[in-house]
Amino acid sequence: MAFVPTMGNLHEGHLALVREARKRADNVVVSIFVNRLQFGQGEDFDKYPRTLQQDADKLAAEGVAVVFAPDEKELYPNVEQRYNVEPPHLQNELCGKFRPGHFRGVATVVSKLFNIVLPDVACFGKKDYQQLAVIKGLTEDLNFDIEIVPVDTGRAADGLALSSRNRYLSVGERAEAPRLYRELQAVAESLKQAGLDYAGLERQAADHLTAAGWLVDYVEIRRADTLEMARAGDKKLVVLAAARLGTTRLIDNVEVGLP
Amino acid sequence: MAFVPTMGNLHEGHLALVREARKRADNVVVSIFVNRLQFGQGEDFDKYPRTLQQDADKLAAEGVAVVFAPDEKELYPNVEQRYNVEPPHLQNELCGKFRPGHFRGVATVVSKLFNIVLPDVACFGKKDYQQLAVIKGLTEDLNFDIEIVPVDTGRAADGLALSSRNRYLSVGERAEAPRLYRELQAVAESLKQAGLDYAGLERQAADHLTAAGWLVDYVEIRRADTLEMARAGDKKLVVLAAARLGTTRLIDNVEVGLP
Repeated sequence: MAFVPTMGNLHEGHLALVREARKRADNVVVSIFVNRLQFGQGEDFDKYPRTLQQDADKLAAEGVAVVFAPDEKELYPNVEQRYNVEPPHLQNELCGKFRPGHFRGVATVVSKLFNIVLPDVACFGKKDYQQLAVIKGLTEDLNFDIEIVPVDTGRAADGLALSSRNRYLSVGERAEAPRLYRELQAVAESLKQAGLDYAGLERQAADHLTAAGWLVDYVEIRRADTLEMARAGDKKLVVLAAARLGTTRLIDNVEVGLP
Repeated sequence: MAFVPTMGNLHEGHLALVREARKRADNVVVSIFVNRLQFGQGEDFDKYPRTLQQDADKLAAEGVAVVFAPDEKELYPNVEQRYNVEPPHLQNELCGKFRPGHFRGVATVVSKLFNIVLPDVACFGKKDYQQLAVIKGLTEDLNFDIEIVPVDTGRAADGLALSSRNRYLSVGERAEAPRLYRELQAVAESLKQAGLDYAGLERQAADHLTAAGWLVDYVEIRRADTLEMARAGDKKLVVLAAARLGTTRLIDNVEVGLP
């Protein structure tokens, strides 16, 4: 059984996860649950789009056997979550620095869903690269017998990573948004060409985005997979960024393999 | 399938857990693993008795189908445990106050064992009452589909709770040790007779033990099951204590139902 946990409002990025899941197993379970634990104060929990019927129709068309859409009471029987799956310091780095408690919430709800669904395989998108690292980590450390399958980021024709939050963008912001991916590609290219000056490349990309009107949370070059600090000589890297256009926070990343 | 997690060195108290497990399920799995995560600095991890062959013989005689005795590498594949199951403040109360990190270690290893064994039922002794409360809590909060079965404390004829650590007692200490249970029974009796003066009863029992040469960590009256602070009007209580005789730390508890 292959499992695809989602927060619903499904787009082509999610459906790519579902198709990968169908390749891996006869039975695919997709969960739809907007998890309050992973939203911070002032974040968009209340306005996060909930589109269960359309989601179910899309999943039926993809041949998904089971849609699991629990209510609050099923996932939080005691209302308060007292026992949490606590990630290591990585939870306070990158996106975690700007979203306190987010990765604890992700780690905890994914553990809960794993315990309910008991899948053999679970698929997660590389767009949420840090989330993927956290889930790989907890799966190993808590001895879940589940294979974690990373799936490439779905993108619009102009390169923008697919995300439910793209709907918050104005027309002008939507036209600007692909710059994030272009800047990450530029950093990746520079890494291949030349440079060990990680900090310089990060700053340059952040400056370009800032000049174009973005509010940059971070641009960082890290080790792929584990997201540890990159060091000279590392061959498998990932360039990650989070930045805001107006009130909308976008994230993206590009993996880089050096020869 | 019913599961009995242990640290080995099995005595009659463990076998009572195994017999309860056999009543609950056709297949019984007993794990034997001395879990370093739940031992603090200066505690007895190194000298904790390891008696695998004798344990396996006892379990075979009880009709146990599977003994699961993993090595360090199976339970800690990354050596360092980065992702932990973090209990709420209860982990720093009662025994937790004297054993920092202990209940995090217990919660984490039990979650790992649950994920490996995937039982329907798991049996835990009431002797480790706080441990039982932590395991009930994490099972609910992390949505493990496992029934937690509490089993009464096994006792020697003189009332001393069975424990692997009793072997550390000298002959004189062993003769003194049953006082702990007697004091808890006396507190329970006073609660039934009269008193709402929880603090007074706690202090009295601690004073008696101290006068008899014990070093008392705590004597506390709490709500049964959850171990929240007891309040006037509570009907289901538990009296818990931890105290040292020489270098050996003993714990015990008595549940009290008020009319």
